[in-house]
Amino acid sequence: MSELLVKARKANECARILATISTEEKNAALQLIAEQLLIEEEFLLTENKKDIIEARNNGTNEGIIDRLTLNAERLRDMAEGLKQVASLPDPVGEILTSITRPNGLNINKVRVPLGVIGMIYEARPNVTIDASSLCLKAGNAVILRGSSSAIHSNIALVQVVQRALDKTTIPVEAIQLIEDTSRQTATEMFTLNEYLDVLIPRGGASLIQSVVNNASVPVLETGVGNCHLYIDETAQTEMAISIAVNAKTQRPSVCNAVETILIHEKWASTHFEDLLVALIEKGVSFVGDEKTRALDSRIELASETDWKDEFLDLKVALKVVNSVDEAIEHIYTYGTKHSESIISEDALNVESFLNKVDAAAVYHNASTRFTDGFEFGFGAEIGISTQKLHARGPMGLEALTSTKYIVHGTGQVKG
Amino acid sequence: MSELLVKARKANECARILATISTEEKNAALQLIAEQLLIEEEFLLTENKKDIIEARNNGTNEGIIDRLTLNAERLRDMAEGLKQVASLPDPVGEILTSITRPNGLNINKVRVPLGVIGMIYEARPNVTIDASSLCLKAGNAVILRGSSSAIHSNIALVQVVQRALDKTTIPVEAIQLIEDTSRQTATEMFTLNEYLDVLIPRGGASLIQSVVNNASVPVLETGVGNCHLYIDETAQTEMAISIAVNAKTQRPSVCNAVETILIHEKWASTHFEDLLVALIEKGVSFVGDEKTRALDSRIELASETDWKDEFLDLKVALKVVNSVDEAIEHIYTYGTKHSESIISEDALNVESFLNKVDAAAVYHNASTRFTDGFEFGFGAEIGISTQKLHARGPMGLEALTSTKYIVHGTGQVKG
Repeated sequence: MSELLVKARKANECARILATISTEEKNAALQLIAEQLLIEEEFLLTENKKDIIEARNNGTNEGIIDRLTLNAERLRDMAEGLKQVASLPDPVGEILTSITRPNGLNINKVRVPLGVIGMIYEARPNVTIDASSLCLKAGNAVILRGSSSAIHSNIALVQVVQRALDKTTIPVEAIQLIEDTSRQTATEMFTLNEYLDVLIPRGGASLIQSVVNNASVPVLETGVGNCHLYIDETAQTEMAISIAVNAKTQRPSVCNAVETILIHEKWASTHFEDLLVALIEKGVSFVGDEKTRALDSRIELASETDWKDEFLDLKVALKVVNSVDEAIEHIYTYGTKHSESIISEDALNVESFLNKVDAAAVYHNASTRFTDGFEFGFGAEIGISTQKLHARGPMGLEALTSTKYIVHGTGQVKG
Repeated sequence: MSELLVKARKANECARILATISTEEKNAALQLIAEQLLIEEEFLLTENKKDIIEARNNGTNEGIIDRLTLNAERLRDMAEGLKQVASLPDPVGEILTSITRPNGLNINKVRVPLGVIGMIYEARPNVTIDASSLCLKAGNAVILRGSSSAIHSNIALVQVVQRALDKTTIPVEAIQLIEDTSRQTATEMFTLNEYLDVLIPRGGASLIQSVVNNASVPVLETGVGNCHLYIDETAQTEMAISIAVNAKTQRPSVCNAVETILIHEKWASTHFEDLLVALIEKGVSFVGDEKTRALDSRIELASETDWKDEFLDLKVALKVVNSVDEAIEHIYTYGTKHSESIISEDALNVESFLNKVDAAAVYHNASTRFTDGFEFGFGAEIGISTQKLHARGPMGLEALTSTKYIVHGTGQVKG
């Protein structure tokens, strides 16, 4: 039997136990894991160093090495994260609706864990702890399948987690890592419907596409964000510029950063240069349509790809439009239904934009950078869903639960 | 371009319009479709007859021919169903949560349509109208892919629907049928992620498995029900027998009928014959374990398959167990997580069963036959979900919606 199958079976047994375990027991376990991470700092950093040495030998770039690196501060952050998750309300057991039917049946819709969650993710070892803590708090068993580049760190982290769980009522197999990082183990997970209730891929677009296209297990898709900012004719100048700069430059490598700014021609006719200057100050480069190039020759002509893809960099596409409708059309054509914002003082245009643009989050007079579980007040985030089923937008603990109808009768039969 | 691709593109354009159309316009359209069905009765029955003649020529059994048949009464029922859907509350626009964050951002989670729904279904032409009305009410465009055996009926029904829509503000392409019923069109739908937001298969287990295994479009799985009734030591005799008879025989061909009855040994020692007699009166035959055969020699020995599969017939598997825990274990091993019931007067055993059994619906002292959108008060049903993501159990209009975060700011940027 493969490593995956052995662990998947154990995860299923654990899921049954986890489903009925108390909030106090789960929180105590999260606290113990946080403590264990700090107790075993030396072991964790030693193991992490093996990954870093291998990465350097493989010529990995420093950006990725930085994301791979653990240090005392990052371990403290992880421990802090675990304590925060412990402090969040337990979603399990919440009664969502309760009705009594004319025949006397009392029907309660109750939140329950999903069961067994498969996480497939890349590089960053902190995902190992983040995902584990959220899955555990929501009463799920988790099977982690990280990347080979972080394998020493991940093995060490899960050993530490399991040593903490060993001191609790929760079986250590509630959190398991697949140590075989061959492509085959990921592929095997795609179709393990008998044991996995959901797959959550976290990483680049190609990883996510591979899971979506090949998995028969239901997938929570966390996707790309080709986000737009539309500056309407009536937008306040300073607000528009400040939001554009924030949405593009505050952290350009993330999915809720803006990639294209659509500008109403009247606003552009007076404020275009101010916008450009503010972005240039932050090191942003530009591509744009012919109309923007007529306004400023420093703008290079945008290709179809520029409108379509995420730059994830200090680069932005600019386009002049003649109405909110043209902006909505552009977003319909090129958007990825992640986060879209309108800056405007015109109530009708705002309403039209918010209603007609189909995205996980639509904003009025605010930066798209707020699409985030912490900013939305969920206290934690397992990812941002760009699909429409189950969960859309930032996913907190609730996204890691299902429901169950509990029905109380007094002998009712169907007539 | 294939018929499917042409229609899928039109459906996407329609979905944009449908998302902002008023409740009144949708309800008026549903009323007009109901009227048009009755106006065009003659046309519909003539076209339906073509399917019936072909089915007879192909030697189709009378049960299936009955399900395929339209008549004046069934058309009236369909029209009635449309009017009922019109009378239901519109799920779209409902504000599910509304919070204001410390930074002043006002975040509203609002119910919105899913977009474009692909229905893949078998035989019964009434599904064409049921699915269309529910999808429309929830603001979705739908692409119907019925079976070849009902193709004349389905083409006629969708023509009638579109003639009704032609009198409204809703584009006729909101409801479209794929007329090419080759296997290829279904397969093509499986991977049409660009245009379809969800696939809903309705039909036999092999159809559903084929969609689940091969679709990259998210699937709402409506599955098989291998449902159990557990009669505890303390069960009231008459109640237990009445529920057993109802759950097994009231309509044995459906997914929420009971397939296995688990009986506590103490209850069995005094009431087993009464239970058998009541079931025999309804024409039920039996298989069972060795303990039940020791009680009554008319019981044949159950095979592994008998515990595992749906009979969908007047046949039941019987097993004597020594505790609620043994019943829970049996259900864990063989259940399909659909509907499970305990008959008991022991509060601890009831609580244990309801909490530990993982199923869409768990019952105490009631028949499993109540797992149904109408019985749950949803007013309508698109199917019964046996998966854990998005919707679990009977699916009404809400299951055909997604959500969207609408965020109002006053210039907020992320710090």
